[in-house]
Amino acid sequence: MAAGGREPVSGSDSRRAPSVAADGRLRVTYSLTLDTGESPEAKARGIAFEQTVELPEGRVPADLVNEVVGRVESVEAAGDGKWQTRISYSADLAGGNFSQLMNLLYGNISLLSGIRLVAVEWPADLLAAIPGPTHGVQGLRSLCGVQERRPLTCAVAKPLGLSPRQLAELAGEMARAGVDIIKDDHSLADQPAAPFRERITMCQAAVEEANRAEGTSARYFPSLGGGGRMLRERVGHLQEVGCRGAVVMPFHSGLDTVAGLAYESELALLAHPSGSGVLFGAEHGVAPEVYLGQVLRLAGCDAVIYPHAGGRFRMDESTAGAIRSNLLAELGTLRPSAPAPGGSIDPARLQGWFRLYGPDSVFVVGSSVIRAEDPRRAAEKWVATVRSAFV
Amino acid sequence: MAAGGREPVSGSDSRRAPSVAADGRLRVTYSLTLDTGESPEAKARGIAFEQTVELPEGRVPADLVNEVVGRVESVEAAGDGKWQTRISYSADLAGGNFSQLMNLLYGNISLLSGIRLVAVEWPADLLAAIPGPTHGVQGLRSLCGVQERRPLTCAVAKPLGLSPRQLAELAGEMARAGVDIIKDDHSLADQPAAPFRERITMCQAAVEEANRAEGTSARYFPSLGGGGRMLRERVGHLQEVGCRGAVVMPFHSGLDTVAGLAYESELALLAHPSGSGVLFGAEHGVAPEVYLGQVLRLAGCDAVIYPHAGGRFRMDESTAGAIRSNLLAELGTLRPSAPAPGGSIDPARLQGWFRLYGPDSVFVVGSSVIRAEDPRRAAEKWVATVRSAFV
Repeated sequence: MAAGGREPVSGSDSRRAPSVAADGRLRVTYSLTLDTGESPEAKARGIAFEQTVELPEGRVPADLVNEVVGRVESVEAAGDGKWQTRISYSADLAGGNFSQLMNLLYGNISLLSGIRLVAVEWPADLLAAIPGPTHGVQGLRSLCGVQERRPLTCAVAKPLGLSPRQLAELAGEMARAGVDIIKDDHSLADQPAAPFRERITMCQAAVEEANRAEGTSARYFPSLGGGGRMLRERVGHLQEVGCRGAVVMPFHSGLDTVAGLAYESELALLAHPSGSGVLFGAEHGVAPEVYLGQVLRLAGCDAVIYPHAGGRFRMDESTAGAIRSNLLAELGTLRPSAPAPGGSIDPARLQGWFRLYGPDSVFVVGSSVIRAEDPRRAAEKWVATVRSAFV
Repeated sequence: MAAGGREPVSGSDSRRAPSVAADGRLRVTYSLTLDTGESPEAKARGIAFEQTVELPEGRVPADLVNEVVGRVESVEAAGDGKWQTRISYSADLAGGNFSQLMNLLYGNISLLSGIRLVAVEWPADLLAAIPGPTHGVQGLRSLCGVQERRPLTCAVAKPLGLSPRQLAELAGEMARAGVDIIKDDHSLADQPAAPFRERITMCQAAVEEANRAEGTSARYFPSLGGGGRMLRERVGHLQEVGCRGAVVMPFHSGLDTVAGLAYESELALLAHPSGSGVLFGAEHGVAPEVYLGQVLRLAGCDAVIYPHAGGRFRMDESTAGAIRSNLLAELGTLRPSAPAPGGSIDPARLQGWFRLYGPDSVFVVGSSVIRAEDPRRAAEKWVATVRSAFV
C-alpha cells in the first residue's frame, strides 16, 4: 500500500477530547486570555450567564440559574498566561436550529474579548436530532461512480469573468481528464459575464457529454447562493438540469440556509470557507477544527474545503489534521464529511498531503491545473498521481 | 427642544467618506498591517487578485486582469506602521446576492491576516438594485402608531427558560407600560421550556390585549431563526397570528436569508448582532460601522441592535456614532434603518445617549427593566424619560 493508504496522522493531543458527551450536556471548552485585573473564574462565569440568560449574575431567578445558566465545570491555567474553562449547557437550549446553536456556543461573547471556543462535546440526543450530511464520503463516491476507496479529485471552473461557454469548455475538459467533481468557483453567482441559468445549463451539459464520450460519471457542482425565493428557484433549476450537488459558502449564506438545503434538496453540498477566517482569531473566536470540522458537518455539508498547510493561506499542519480528524471521526450516527484540502498546492509535497488526508478526502486543484499550458494534460497527470497513491 | 432633539454628533472624520461611488465602481478601503518583509503594494495587489479571480498574478489572462481583477487605486501610509489601500471592483461582480457581495468584499482574504475592511463606496447602480429596509425608521413608527418624531422604546421578553405564559405576561406588562416594541430575546427559538408556536401565539395575544385595554399600538417582534421549510412555516405562523416584525440574527442566519425575509415576508426586521463580534478585529476583519451600519441596512434590516459604548461589550463612542450615522445617512434611495443601542445602559448617562442617537432610533432596555422589583413601573419610568427628552 502506498503512502496515501496509511492511516492519517492525528492532530495534537489537546484536540482529541471525546466529542460525544455521555451525560447529555453540551460541553464547551473556551480558552481565556485575561485583561489586566480580570479573574479567570469571573470571566468563565460571565460566559455562562451571557450565553444563556444574558443577564448579569444576581438578576436571575434561582431556578433559572440552576436549569438554564451554563455550568462552569472547570477553570484551569493553560500556560502562557492563558486559562481554559469548561462550561456545560443544557442541550435543550440549542432550540432546534443552527442559528440558535451557534448563538449558544458563541453569540454575545463574540462582542467581548479573549474568549476562544476550542472544543465541543456534543450530547447524543442533540446529535440524534440532526440528520447531518445526506451523502457523506461514501455517498459522494457513489455519486461519481467511484468503486475504490480513494480520494475524489475536484477541479474548479474559474476564474470569474469567463463566459458560460468558456467555463463549460473547461468543465468538459476536466471531466474528460478523469476528474470526479468539477465545481464552480464559489464567486460565480449571477454575473453579467456568466448568468446563473445559462452557466449551469451549459456546464452541466458539457460534463454530461464528456461522461457519455468517456464512459465516466463526473459530476458538476455549481455555486449556489441567495435566499428565499431566489434560492428555491435556483435549486429548482439545478434539479431540472440534473445537477446532484452544489458549492455553498456557509459563512456568508448562514448555517440555517445550508442545513435547509442539505435536508430538503438532496443536493450534495461542498462547503467553501470564504469569510470564515474572521472566526479563527488566536485569542478570540472559534477554532477552525470546531467550525470547519464539526459545525459544518452537523449542518449537513458532505465535504468541506479548507486551505492546506503550506499554501497561500494561514494554516498549520496540526490544525489541518485536526479538521480532517473531526470531519471523519465517529460522531453519533452522522455520516463523515470529506475533508477537501485546497489552496495553492505545492506538488513537491503531495506525498505528505496524501498521508495527512488519507483516502476519504476530496483533493481540490484550482490554479495549478487551470492555468497550465494544456489544462487537460495537467489534470490527467494530477488524476493519475492521486489514483496511483491509493492503489 | 431638549437634548435628545439636537442633531446627533458625528463619527470621526476618517469615517465620513462619501458612501456612493460616482463612477459606478465598488470602492473598498482596507487597512493593512504588514508582516515582516511584506510590501504594502504587494499586499494590496494580492487582495485585488484574491478577491476576484483567486489566481496569483501572472496566471490570469490579460483581458480579465483589466475587467475583473480589482484595481488598486491607492496605497498610503496611515501611521502607527499601518497602511491603507483603496481597491475598486466592477459592481457587476457582486452578482445579485448577498453571499457573493460579502465574498467579494471580504471572502478568501479572511483566511489571510492584517486586512481590515474599513469603508465602502457603493455604486449607485448596485444600490438601485437593492430594495433595502421595507419599513425603515418611519415605517417602524407607523407600525407602532407613533406620530411624533421620537425614538421608539423596545423592551425584551427574557430570559431564556421562562414559559410562554411567563413571557406573555411580561410582554403584556411592557405593552401596558407604553413600550412601543416588545421583542423576544434572540436566544428564544424552539426550546422545550417555550415552544415556538405556543410562545408566539401567547405573547402576541398578550400584547394585543394590552393594546385593546390601553388604546395603544405596541408590537411584538418574535425571534425568528431556521432555514428552508422550517423558516417558511415559522413566517407563516407569525403572519397568521398577526405579528408584523421579527428579531433576526444576520450573522448566524446569513445575509441571504435575512434579505429573503425582508423582501418577501413584509415583516419588519430588527437585527441582533450575536456572533458578529468576530468580524470586528483591530487588525483583521470588517469595521462595525460597515457591517452593522451599511451591510445590514442593504440586507433589509429596519433596525440594528448594537452595544452602546460604556455598556458591558467592547464599543467606543466614536464607533457607536459611526454605526448610527451610516444607518441613517442618505444611501441611494434606501430607507434609513434605526440604530437600536442596547447592552447594559447606565441610567446616569442617558442624556449623552439621547444626544448621540437622536430621535430616529430604537432604545432597547433589557435587564434593567426586566429585573426591577416592579418591571411595569420601571418600564413606565423609562418610557417617560425617553419621551420627555424628545418633546
